[in-house]
Amino acid sequence: MGYILLKKFEQSPQLINRSSFETLTLLGNPKAIDKCVRYIDKDLNRCFNFQALDYEKNNSFYENQRAQEISNQFGLSENTPIDLVVDQHSTTSNVGLMLILDHLDPFILNLSAYLVARIPDLKIYSSAISGRAQDSLRSIAKYRFGIEVGPICHGSLQADLLQKTEILVYEILDYVVLHNRNAIEIENTLLTVYEYVNSIDYPRSNEGVMIAMIHPQLEGQDYKALNSGDPIFMTFDGEIITYQGRLTVYPVFVNEVAYYEKKVAMSLTRKKSVQLDELTNHPIDYV
Amino acid sequence: MGYILLKKFEQSPQLINRSSFETLTLLGNPKAIDKCVRYIDKDLNRCFNFQALDYEKNNSFYENQRAQEISNQFGLSENTPIDLVVDQHSTTSNVGLMLILDHLDPFILNLSAYLVARIPDLKIYSSAISGRAQDSLRSIAKYRFGIEVGPICHGSLQADLLQKTEILVYEILDYVVLHNRNAIEIENTLLTVYEYVNSIDYPRSNEGVMIAMIHPQLEGQDYKALNSGDPIFMTFDGEIITYQGRLTVYPVFVNEVAYYEKKVAMSLTRKKSVQLDELTNHPIDYV
Repeated sequence: MGYILLKKFEQSPQLINRSSFETLTLLGNPKAIDKCVRYIDKDLNRCFNFQALDYEKNNSFYENQRAQEISNQFGLSENTPIDLVVDQHSTTSNVGLMLILDHLDPFILNLSAYLVARIPDLKIYSSAISGRAQDSLRSIAKYRFGIEVGPICHGSLQADLLQKTEILVYEILDYVVLHNRNAIEIENTLLTVYEYVNSIDYPRSNEGVMIAMIHPQLEGQDYKALNSGDPIFMTFDGEIITYQGRLTVYPVFVNEVAYYEKKVAMSLTRKKSVQLDELTNHPIDYV
Repeated sequence: MGYILLKKFEQSPQLINRSSFETLTLLGNPKAIDKCVRYIDKDLNRCFNFQALDYEKNNSFYENQRAQEISNQFGLSENTPIDLVVDQHSTTSNVGLMLILDHLDPFILNLSAYLVARIPDLKIYSSAISGRAQDSLRSIAKYRFGIEVGPICHGSLQADLLQKTEILVYEILDYVVLHNRNAIEIENTLLTVYEYVNSIDYPRSNEGVMIAMIHPQLEGQDYKALNSGDPIFMTFDGEIITYQGRLTVYPVFVNEVAYYEKKVAMSLTRKKSVQLDELTNHPIDYV
């Protein structure tokens, strides 16, 4: 859905232009958008770890080439390094509107707190050890986060979620204006962050075939507390499988269709309160 | 999602076997299921009009070949003609659980009334002049209907809708048992049928590019009354487009993603009451 906003911004650049920095737009995977598929050869958001051992092997993959192109243009050591990447995605899971943070650095945390104050149903997810800090498109920049909105079926448009995303983008740009003016006042705030713990797969047969699906009681319950004994899966024969962990967790990306092939039925997070009391003041030049 | 039920039925045929007729299962488009796409070359449910003028031209299409195979095996004039086809689909639109009827013949109408009495939220949609009576897979049989369930993203599983579909299939088979025993008692019932009027496209630019999406107030409102002046679309600039017809209509397949390429934003139906007072008593041998 993000490409609709992107086209709007390209047609009306005044919507995203601000005086103290330059805002660039980039369509990550234009071939996939043209074909209305998620990717041609490989998820683009798993292609940016150029140091990975298996990287060279797959250089014929379109997305690996595209990752190299994007990195060569906008990477930290290139001619036009990007300071802040806002990477926009949609999901079939019911996450509403959320930010994905790779690192809890003061700039991103303060920005998150500013946004939550304006958009109270915005959720803050810290991807931490999930791997996205190394291999995602946004990993090319020092400051970065992902936006996820859902539930949206791939290739589909949802007016309400499109409008919420658009408002979120403007709020982010407004924050950067204030940041560059040193006009951010940080209060002694606690920010709720949902921190990645691990991902769990669907139950499978010995041959690796899925034998269960998300339990109806968990369907659409992203960011709701899941306690020991709560149902999580239902087999195709109607058998109920419950969550056995001791820790109360908050699942996200529940029933994301693109993750079936990645063997992820959902990611489990724990709820944390993060104290905001520091402030970075490096100016942002490119978003 | 239907292939999960199909596999279950193939592994446990006693679930669908009944003594007075034979129940066969068929995966319509196995190549597309394998690739997790809707089709390889063309929607299979538009490939069964072998008399269509443009049919010969596209014989290299996988789905045209597959349609010919299916028709050669199960068509009316072949060796194992099917009496009743139950064609199972899912949709990204919020239709709940629905039957699609091609013709309002007494057998199908009485079956529909029987099902609605048992599953009150089941909707009955008459596709009438939409073209599906000629070119869909189910068109190979004299008695036929489609099952649609939604909202489900393509390639996704939803436990509650899977269970509802499974129950519906058993109710259909039970009805055929009663029918073959001449044990159906038809009361002087009125059946609510939503009859196809026409389909409408998204607003587009002169170049054919979509410039609007479903209005949030209409999103998910399949089978709800739409009156003159009600919002139907919202342009990417936030402009609202309203329904201008005089007739109160009931939209279905609202925001079905697979219909973007078919230039269908939704199909409009009118609500009819159909009197049930006739009964066909031809036995059903193959389902």
